[in-house]
Amino acid sequence: MELRSEHGCFGGRQYFYSHASQSTGTQMNFSVFVPPQAASQKVPALYYLAGLTCTEETFMIKAGAQRLAAELGLLLVSCDTSPRGLDLPGDADSWDFGVGAGFYLNATQPPWSGHYRMADYVNEELPALIEANFPASAERRGIFGHSMGGHGALVTALRNPERWHSLSAFAPIANPVAVPWGQKAFSNYLGNDEGAWAEWDASLLMAKQAFPSEVLVDQGEADAFLERELHPEALEHAAEKSGQSLRLRRHAGYDHGYYFIQSFIEDHLRHHAGILFA
Amino acid sequence: MELRSEHGCFGGRQYFYSHASQSTGTQMNFSVFVPPQAASQKVPALYYLAGLTCTEETFMIKAGAQRLAAELGLLLVSCDTSPRGLDLPGDADSWDFGVGAGFYLNATQPPWSGHYRMADYVNEELPALIEANFPASAERRGIFGHSMGGHGALVTALRNPERWHSLSAFAPIANPVAVPWGQKAFSNYLGNDEGAWAEWDASLLMAKQAFPSEVLVDQGEADAFLERELHPEALEHAAEKSGQSLRLRRHAGYDHGYYFIQSFIEDHLRHHAGILFA
Repeated sequence: MELRSEHGCFGGRQYFYSHASQSTGTQMNFSVFVPPQAASQKVPALYYLAGLTCTEETFMIKAGAQRLAAELGLLLVSCDTSPRGLDLPGDADSWDFGVGAGFYLNATQPPWSGHYRMADYVNEELPALIEANFPASAERRGIFGHSMGGHGALVTALRNPERWHSLSAFAPIANPVAVPWGQKAFSNYLGNDEGAWAEWDASLLMAKQAFPSEVLVDQGEADAFLERELHPEALEHAAEKSGQSLRLRRHAGYDHGYYFIQSFIEDHLRHHAGILFA
Repeated sequence: MELRSEHGCFGGRQYFYSHASQSTGTQMNFSVFVPPQAASQKVPALYYLAGLTCTEETFMIKAGAQRLAAELGLLLVSCDTSPRGLDLPGDADSWDFGVGAGFYLNATQPPWSGHYRMADYVNEELPALIEANFPASAERRGIFGHSMGGHGALVTALRNPERWHSLSAFAPIANPVAVPWGQKAFSNYLGNDEGAWAEWDASLLMAKQAFPSEVLVDQGEADAFLERELHPEALEHAAEKSGQSLRLRRHAGYDHGYYFIQSFIEDHLRHHAGILFA
């Protein structure tokens, strides 16, 4: 690991690192906020997956999460949204596919399959790295995210409920097989077999098996992507099928950005803390 | 005024505008957070001046101030750090002078004197615009800022104590006549008469006359600019001379950036609210 910068923050430390990732075969960047409580004990870690075009910095700069994480004693982790620097054909042609748009899955189609393995990175490699190098408990992990990262958090936890204990999302791409962002990404990364797509769709996964703890989802009603790309109602239907405990809240006047996220970040941290410290 | 964007935020609204400024002769951008309390009454406004290279967005994105402003009922205002788009000779050659580095003074030297009038803009034009168009009280104004903007806040309030009621700063350029950033800016904007410089130096102004209310200043001890550019001890000496009530706090482990600012933003908002609501 290479330390790129560190900063005092609310009595804890904010770190930015890069490392050579086995999952992606590239250097990957990640960020960690270590709360003051971690000076004397291991603490639960809460992983945040960012949306299209974002980086490992976005959440730490814009979400306003460190204040309450320092109070509750949560270690926060975020990472980049794709491998970078590969220069694969077409990887920089659009903002919603390729660089900055890894969709937190394991690609099966060339040229993506060798590097676009963000699911392995988030589910296995990054937690192992964090738990080996920071005072993060390996027993209690939470995960959440925004938009493409909300999809990523839901899918990561629903596919691996033995590894993740708490789960929430802001404005997730809830049913990617049914919307343009998801169809573009899945057809390129996974090919045209829609059976393969179903393994990476939060609503299809949730309909089959409920996550063990309550799932919190916040959605702004003034979100410009709501009708075309997000489809939170698909999660509600899935939760009915599997008996998932789902708290989906719709908020009038809030859009898709970080002014929305920061307005409700406290509720998400308290949701995770309530489960991770139980 | 042209509305560029608006966002729901903590029950209030975050706005970004541009307008044709008489002070600078250019379009200027500014940002306003209107707290929920302002739906039914005028509220005090707190103006934030950002540092070198920043814009009207920086504070609203990075400082984490809206949460408590929404609780306390403070309207927040920030603005750009210089005129832009003029293409004056040399205005983009360095990051610490010209574009993004207006130093919140009224320039007297060509080619700057016709446009670099950020002091008039901050002290008069922007409050008049805000008070005419938003539910901001004209009776109770606070001002604070960071680095170059800390200098700007101190100088604006110390020069115009009848217009400003509360004052604080993060890591201000406390004694610009004595440091490289200040000397570069002042010699270009004000010429070589150091008597003219003294009218824009917070420590020299404070030594002559105390601001009526207590001044809060926070400074990180891990700030890379502390010894060369900031000189907070000059404010302490000035406060002794004039009897200024000054609460200058030094914080081990904190640097010059917004992870420092967000860590102490709550104390600043409470400082201002305590005076503005008294």
